[in-house]
Amino acid sequence: MPISARNQLTGRITEILLGEVMAHVSVRVGKNVIESVITRRSAEQLGLKKGDTVTAIIKSTEVMLMKD
Amino acid sequence: MPISARNQLTGRITEILLGEVMAHVSVRVGKNVIESVITRRSAEQLGLKKGDTVTAIIKSTEVMLMKD
Amino acid sequence: MPISARNQLTGRITEILLGEVMAHVSVRVGKNVIESVITRRSAEQLGLKKGDTVTAIIKSTEVMLMKD
Amino acid sequence: MPISARNQLTGRITEILLGEVMAHVSVRVGKNVIESVITRRSAEQLGLKKGDTVTAIIKSTEVMLMKD
Amino acid sequence: MPISARNQLTGRITEILLGEVMAHVSVRVGKNVIESVITRRSAEQLGLKKGDTVTAIIKSTEVMLMKD
Amino acid sequence: MPISARNQLTGRITEILLGEVMAHVSVRVGKNVIESVITRRSAEQLGLKKGDTVTAIIKSTEVMLMKD
Repeated sequence: MPISARNQLTGRITEILLGEVMAHVSVRVGKNVIESVITRRSAEQLGLKKGDTVTAIIKSTEVMLMKD
Repeated sequence: MPISARNQLTGRITEILLGEVMAHVSVRVGKNVIESVITRRSAEQLGLKKGDTVTAIIKSTEVMLMKD
Repeated sequence: MPISARNQLTGRITEILLGEVMAHVSVRVGKNVIESVITRRSAEQLGLKKGDTVTAIIKSTEVMLMKD
Repeated sequence: MPISARNQLTGRITEILLGEVMAHVSVRVGKNVIESVITRRSAEQLGLKKGDTVTAIIKSTEVMLMKD
Repeated sequence: MPISARNQLTGRITEILLGEVMAHVSVRVGKNVIESVITRRSAEQLGLKKGDTVTAIIKSTEVMLMKD
Repeated sequence: MPISARNQLTGRITEILLGEVMAHVSVRVGKNVIESVITRRSAEQLGLKKGDTVTAIIKSTEVMLMKD
């Protein structure tokens, strides 16, 4: 997708937790689980459900690094 | 690490681009490349270099989802 | 676009300032100018130039409110 | 306002959705609707209500661009 | 801690407000109170409670400046 | 200031590093130093210089917590 955000990780939804305003969505990407918090409204409008294929999108300025 | 950020992806640095203020760091994680923009100062103080093992840390509120 | 980010503002690029790592892009949207800082690499890979139509995308958790 | 955030969009609140911790606020700005998620506590302390004039403030590093 | 985030402020938790998805945590740091919104799940997994010593971590790209 | 961002820390600028696009500004707040990365353009338009009193503003959703 022609978007400036450099991190785009495709996976499958494993869990959705809905609150009144926010939703917590877990996505399996390879051996990792990516967790995303979006609005409940977006979760509903996208019709997200367990098993759906989605792409997690992350702007590179939001990624910190820790040295092991 | 006991940090609230739910996304912690470990990989190996494949490229570092240094600007005057910022640094652009690419990290291979499984089949994906994660790109991070941090301050040049952090890159230098952590002594980051190509081949280093690092963990990319991302707060879940920064992760968007796109439906395929 | 089926993305969870709730703010999507379409306009025309009026200015691009390139640094070594980052790029500062201004976009006219109606009567407002939206300013975006992305990586230089994204600006180049998207081939952004003055006059292009682009959509600014902003996650709702990044929007603060000030009362007048 | 003398703040570094380069995006300041003034409009009128069209809807407020309150959760226990967060609040989802929609603001009409020209032909667009800007959606903001802030803490419920801030929404209450600012006394936000439908019809209020507010300014949405967005740091430029939070704005992604998509090419059409 | 060898993390790129340049702001690390240690203090003591003074209040925790739990929602279904998110948690609002207040931390006294010197004369200031730092407020953080994290997932409820992180608050629970870290076992956060009033009086705990924690470090607030903030990426420098998230800090705006206002001139007085 | 009537802004929704819950963290507002006042201090004095101790250092400014200017790049082509971004600026790295350090602010002493009590016993801590807060570091901010803003656009060079904002640094110039606010006329920031060493010794100035400024307020660092941070949205609570940007604050992570680490347990000691």
